[in-house]
Amino acid sequence: MLFLVHMVVQIPLDADTELTNRLKADEKAFSQKLQREGKWRHLWRVAGQYANYSVLDVESNDELHTLLSSLPLFPYMAIQVTPLAQHPSAIAQN
Amino acid sequence: MLFLVHMVVQIPLDADTELTNRLKADEKAFSQKLQREGKWRHLWRVAGQYANYSVLDVESNDELHTLLSSLPLFPYMAIQVTPLAQHPSAIAQN
Amino acid sequence: MLFLVHMVVQIPLDADTELTNRLKADEKAFSQKLQREGKWRHLWRVAGQYANYSVLDVESNDELHTLLSSLPLFPYMAIQVTPLAQHPSAIAQN
Amino acid sequence: MLFLVHMVVQIPLDADTELTNRLKADEKAFSQKLQREGKWRHLWRVAGQYANYSVLDVESNDELHTLLSSLPLFPYMAIQVTPLAQHPSAIAQN
Amino acid sequence: MLFLVHMVVQIPLDADTELTNRLKADEKAFSQKLQREGKWRHLWRVAGQYANYSVLDVESNDELHTLLSSLPLFPYMAIQVTPLAQHPSAIAQN
Amino acid sequence: MLFLVHMVVQIPLDADTELTNRLKADEKAFSQKLQREGKWRHLWRVAGQYANYSVLDVESNDELHTLLSSLPLFPYMAIQVTPLAQHPSAIAQN
Amino acid sequence: MLFLVHMVVQIPLDADTELTNRLKADEKAFSQKLQREGKWRHLWRVAGQYANYSVLDVESNDELHTLLSSLPLFPYMAIQVTPLAQHPSAIAQN
Amino acid sequence: MLFLVHMVVQIPLDADTELTNRLKADEKAFSQKLQREGKWRHLWRVAGQYANYSVLDVESNDELHTLLSSLPLFPYMAIQVTPLAQHPSAIAQN
Amino acid sequence: MLFLVHMVVQIPLDADTELTNRLKADEKAFSQKLQREGKWRHLWRVAGQYANYSVLDVESNDELHTLLSSLPLFPYMAIQVTPLAQHPSAIAQN
Amino acid sequence: MLFLVHMVVQIPLDADTELTNRLKADEKAFSQKLQREGKWRHLWRVAGQYANYSVLDVESNDELHTLLSSLPLFPYMAIQVTPLAQHPSAIAQN
Repeated sequence: MLFLVHMVVQIPLDADTELTNRLKADEKAFSQKLQREGKWRHLWRVAGQYANYSVLDVESNDELHTLLSSLPLFPYMAIQVTPLAQHPSAIAQN
Repeated sequence: MLFLVHMVVQIPLDADTELTNRLKADEKAFSQKLQREGKWRHLWRVAGQYANYSVLDVESNDELHTLLSSLPLFPYMAIQVTPLAQHPSAIAQN
Repeated sequence: MLFLVHMVVQIPLDADTELTNRLKADEKAFSQKLQREGKWRHLWRVAGQYANYSVLDVESNDELHTLLSSLPLFPYMAIQVTPLAQHPSAIAQN
Repeated sequence: MLFLVHMVVQIPLDADTELTNRLKADEKAFSQKLQREGKWRHLWRVAGQYANYSVLDVESNDELHTLLSSLPLFPYMAIQVTPLAQHPSAIAQN
Repeated sequence: MLFLVHMVVQIPLDADTELTNRLKADEKAFSQKLQREGKWRHLWRVAGQYANYSVLDVESNDELHTLLSSLPLFPYMAIQVTPLAQHPSAIAQN
Repeated sequence: MLFLVHMVVQIPLDADTELTNRLKADEKAFSQKLQREGKWRHLWRVAGQYANYSVLDVESNDELHTLLSSLPLFPYMAIQVTPLAQHPSAIAQN
Repeated sequence: MLFLVHMVVQIPLDADTELTNRLKADEKAFSQKLQREGKWRHLWRVAGQYANYSVLDVESNDELHTLLSSLPLFPYMAIQVTPLAQHPSAIAQN
Repeated sequence: MLFLVHMVVQIPLDADTELTNRLKADEKAFSQKLQREGKWRHLWRVAGQYANYSVLDVESNDELHTLLSSLPLFPYMAIQVTPLAQHPSAIAQN
Repeated sequence: MLFLVHMVVQIPLDADTELTNRLKADEKAFSQKLQREGKWRHLWRVAGQYANYSVLDVESNDELHTLLSSLPLFPYMAIQVTPLAQHPSAIAQN
Repeated sequence: MLFLVHMVVQIPLDADTELTNRLKADEKAFSQKLQREGKWRHLWRVAGQYANYSVLDVESNDELHTLLSSLPLFPYMAIQVTPLAQHPSAIAQN
């Protein structure tokens, strides 16, 4: 089941760089693990912004929330979720 | 080069059904041709709405506009475009 | 799996009353069938508006979209969907 | 009498963790007490956000405000209230 | 129990004048009856707009919705409702 | 001459409690003096928010601004003003 | 007493030209009469739009509403009103 | 003196095609004349929309408004104007 | 050439009072000098807000920007500019 | 391939002036290098604001993002990107 997720990263300018660098590294590792498992199906940078659009493939809203709230940068992000359904004109299955 | 495209279909309630049915059929055929060619890479229905999120893979902004303005339902749609770039944490190439 | 659904009914003032009365009756019957089946778990009127907030219990985003787009009044409604997850402080299971 | 309440929790990133942890524990206990009493009828997490949608069952606007402004996390929340009425198609009484 | 109600009247420019004049007269009579009964406690024109702010005094959300949806001009109005509670600094009781 | 005034109080979480408590007490005293004088005709709490809707009765825009900018909590408030006129269906004079 | 008034003229594309031309002529005459009387103190076109910003000088909110709702184009305009007060740095009196 | 102008063309779906085709041809001719004269310095299509961003070079706000309101499609367009000044880091003069 | 300018002053609550008092005094002096020169043609307080609407009379967008960015409180203000043109019904020249 | 880019600079009032002055100097040098190379084709100040509208000429969305995220002031800016296509009425090629 797919969800389009819009994440905007908002790290305060006076944040502890060492801390946020570690969180960014953890975020990257966690994200890549989920991509390899097929749960984080797409990850794109929004051009010109510290933001991304992602497509996640999960079993339920609960799994989606657990996954997103586990992101190391979760406290620093504004997240919007859009549930996606099969489009009747799509040639591929979701 | 990828673009996230949000399309909301707004067909007036008093539109000529025969006309709009033909346009919808043309739209489906055109969309599936572009999907098979790899230009319309993803097509998802927004749950609960007559709307979709799509990802298009084109050579340029000009090709993107030519493609979108050629859609049979173009005059009936509100379209928003977001240019996507390679995300440094993505394991796949755009 | 629960979704909060906000529906605003927008019937044009010059609509055919006979048609829209039949659609409203169909909508009511369809809604009550889904309520009895447990899929339309809650249905509340927004005070002062021709609108409702509903909670639907479905298996997937696809089932949600199929259900909502089958509503007799679907072409007359503006619908917004919010996916709901289990809250850690809730004493009941979703 | 039912109200849909939307609460977004906005704890500053530099808040005193000990304090906010205690407030969160108090909030959970207070919320569960109200749920057991039937006043806080539903509590759902918004997927992907530190936010919830709740349905409260109170005698009056005054009781609603007293209850909400007593929440331990009240100073950290943005709250929106929507009064709900009986829907004519609902098979259950509010 | 008090509610602040914002009503914007939106009569289409091509509406049947005879019909809308009758509705306006009915609205006025109905509104004045409710004002005399004490249910429609205040009624103010928004300067420069075909709109009003009103304060209604009702027993419940259900009574509020029944009252507002009975207004002859209800199909022509965009209505927003704000529940009001006793203010701790007010010298009068709501 | 009446004005509907919407005031949202936004005291920073790290404000000096002693100072803000004194300001709140001053605000209450000042507000009650104006209520007794008939200038602050209505004062209602917005349910669920640290906000109020008020109706002020003043001679001019200048008196309105002088009054509002004299409020002890003025620097902590976001204020919106709506000028009110006599409604032709109102049974009471403004 | 001054008010900044923003008026956007929205004449439907299919309106009766003879009627709207007469209304525009009436509006111009009425506006110029009020300008000569000193009540309509300023009248500026918003560059690129069928809209204006005006400053009106009236005795009360009631006079303001009576004046604005008497404009021949009133049913075709979206109007926003901002009450203006004496600025402490202004060298002229309002 | 430069202005960034955003124009969105909104031709009703049921407009007279012969009329609007003639207006579009007139618009194109008028626009190209102004481009050749150097007054309409840039004209870009917004990808995916029936809209453009333009840069106009005029002597005054009056000339800007005269020019824009003379566009054959002016009654069909929503226009926003942003005045541009010389940027201190620009290597070219406006 | 006239521009309507909306300025909202946003001085942080914890700003250095001595500094901001000096800036406010400088702003007042600068503003009054420009008013006497005829460049700052009107200056009005928005009732209930730390904001003003002003009308400036300048030769060009560049002069407008130079003037506004020279205001002592410029770093503390959110500014919106609307270019004004001669209105065909105005009896005075801009 | 052209993109219209809107950049709003938001440097906190309490930022280290020495640091931000150095960043501004770097930004200017970087911007002028890109202007000379033809990649930053236009750079305009928005009158009255610490903001600019720019037109960038790049090969791809990736190049656009790399360029924008390399700006010394990138962490201090809110950026919006609009992809531009060839307009059929433009006499110049993009």
